[in-house]
Amino acid sequence: MSSAEDRSPRTPDKRLFTPGPLTTSATVKQAMLRDLGSRDETFLAALRDVRAGLLGAYGLGAGWEVVPLQGSGTYAVEAAVSSFVPPGGRLLALVNGAYGERIVQMAAVHGIDCRVLRGVEDAPIDPAQVAAALAADPAITSVSLVHVETTSGVLNPLVEIGRVVHAAGRVFLVDAMSSFGALPIAFEDGHVDLLASSSNKCLEGVPGLAFVIARRARLEVLEGRARALVLDLFAQWKALEATAQFRFTPPTHVVLALQQALVELRAEGGVAGRGARYRRNHERLTAGMERLGFRALVPAVHRSPIITTYHYPTDPRWDFADVYARLSRRGFLVYPGKLTKAACFRLGNIGRLFVEDMDALLQAVAGVLAETGVDPRR
Amino acid sequence: MSSAEDRSPRTPDKRLFTPGPLTTSATVKQAMLRDLGSRDETFLAALRDVRAGLLGAYGLGAGWEVVPLQGSGTYAVEAAVSSFVPPGGRLLALVNGAYGERIVQMAAVHGIDCRVLRGVEDAPIDPAQVAAALAADPAITSVSLVHVETTSGVLNPLVEIGRVVHAAGRVFLVDAMSSFGALPIAFEDGHVDLLASSSNKCLEGVPGLAFVIARRARLEVLEGRARALVLDLFAQWKALEATAQFRFTPPTHVVLALQQALVELRAEGGVAGRGARYRRNHERLTAGMERLGFRALVPAVHRSPIITTYHYPTDPRWDFADVYARLSRRGFLVYPGKLTKAACFRLGNIGRLFVEDMDALLQAVAGVLAETGVDPRR
Repeated sequence: MSSAEDRSPRTPDKRLFTPGPLTTSATVKQAMLRDLGSRDETFLAALRDVRAGLLGAYGLGAGWEVVPLQGSGTYAVEAAVSSFVPPGGRLLALVNGAYGERIVQMAAVHGIDCRVLRGVEDAPIDPAQVAAALAADPAITSVSLVHVETTSGVLNPLVEIGRVVHAAGRVFLVDAMSSFGALPIAFEDGHVDLLASSSNKCLEGVPGLAFVIARRARLEVLEGRARALVLDLFAQWKALEATAQFRFTPPTHVVLALQQALVELRAEGGVAGRGARYRRNHERLTAGMERLGFRALVPAVHRSPIITTYHYPTDPRWDFADVYARLSRRGFLVYPGKLTKAACFRLGNIGRLFVEDMDALLQAVAGVLAETGVDPRR
Repeated sequence: MSSAEDRSPRTPDKRLFTPGPLTTSATVKQAMLRDLGSRDETFLAALRDVRAGLLGAYGLGAGWEVVPLQGSGTYAVEAAVSSFVPPGGRLLALVNGAYGERIVQMAAVHGIDCRVLRGVEDAPIDPAQVAAALAADPAITSVSLVHVETTSGVLNPLVEIGRVVHAAGRVFLVDAMSSFGALPIAFEDGHVDLLASSSNKCLEGVPGLAFVIARRARLEVLEGRARALVLDLFAQWKALEATAQFRFTPPTHVVLALQQALVELRAEGGVAGRGARYRRNHERLTAGMERLGFRALVPAVHRSPIITTYHYPTDPRWDFADVYARLSRRGFLVYPGKLTKAACFRLGNIGRLFVEDMDALLQAVAGVLAETGVDPRR
């Protein structure tokens, strides 16, 4: 798929090598050039289409539900975290990065009893440790995992952990912010109970809409458990079932963009096709960065093909803010790091970007290195 | 301002006579045809611009802060309601419609001690009753009011109530969803402490962004009071102050639309100019509906120039769903009622609509009456 026809025209904006908001197609943005009434049939049809498209992307049929919600992805994660732990229950949060920590923060805000299994930032969570933690603490009712930890780019072993959680009879929540739409997610084999994601990452929509996909049986028990009106997943689901509408004003334009983005996902061959393009991008970019002398934080075997974290070169001439500004002036936006322990920056390779865009970024990075005299091999 | 030059081109979409999402200008929608990095200077400048524009619309200077938040207007209301009542405090919710009731619901979800002063749906809250309620209950610390109750279109007396609340030494929260941007809001004379609104009503932006405007002294005491991570006004404010960024992915396209909408608000003569157009629309529409024989729920003296509620005609041939569909086919979207006591429908007159649009709607309504044989005078 490196032919010309899969590239829709891009605006002259900078290319975003970030984990989202990201570079979307012109057609996705153009879908927002409409004002629809939030209760009108044209909009409700778009909403039905989006809900079906989100489930359809992973072939989820009967027994699965999707509940969209206004806000960023974090809103959907909090809606799930704050209600899926039963009263008197205990959460085990699996943490190897900032997004795992955020779930711990949410539990604290809501007064949810929470234990934390902390891994290291540059390696996946170990399923055996999860099994041990669950065996040691029968009071744990619920487990949360971040599928791709955007902090580092580490891909956590969803299926293996899901099996452990299921075998131990606990409920399994997955934060799939940076994987949904591009990576396989074994909903059934991984015994996923609830999963949260958003419109503006691998789905290549614009930000402003989040969603939870859940087994119907897991949603049904959430009645009355919500800890905030706007984050009430159960009420939102029931309203959608009864009226086909959001409870509160939906971001109509964002929904229209996602409807178009889902059309483009299917046209690309669905999750497999999207994932294949991201993998090509990722391989081109990581190989090129390695040639330039940069060191990735995460070993290749544990990396997601979504975002990659690089150590700052030790060369004293390296100044990330300066490099960022120079790349920005050339039309490329890169992303700062978010690790607690290592000075790093990040390169996303998702969004409406192709291998040629990776080549262009690599050339720009090489140019900045030449300009500044930084040698990443030093 | 009935000249041609203040009309920007419209898409062929139906005209929205709703309380929002509403008909926006083509230029507002076109502002969304960009993908900006959420941490990049171009976006941060837009965000600064929007924050300054929201305060500037009402000439608010030092001592006032604005905290934008992802989501619909209800998100901002809940962020304020759930944190502005001090620990051990008591809320007095002033209620004369569904949006007042929603605040009561929020208090219940958050376990906030709440008393309710319920007025009637077709008249404003009486400031004397508020004074009496506050005098009778010293435990009340905080008062909430919906400025324009979108349920009915009633305009509540913000200044008079604010003075009563202030004289009694209580904190005053205003839900200004349907007034901000078009009606005068006496922040100082009305002793407003916190006010919540959203991007997609009188500001004529698109939905997906809400905000709270607050006295700095009222925000500063909210630390640690939030009952949900994503609704933490204090943390959101502090992050914006420290980094100029949202804590969680902002709806970048919606922010760009609001930036353009604020440019267009200023070009129209600010709140006064926008309000004047809405008043012209409102007068044309209400006069025309009266001529057709429809009866408004709210007496003219208590109406806001935003949205008007009409009783269903008693003619047995009246069928709102059928009328809605007929008007929709003609390109006009009207709005169902939301009252508990009367069978009604609503007509908004806000958004990028002009007196000619009111005339066009009136002509369409007359056509539907002729077609269906309904006589609203019966």
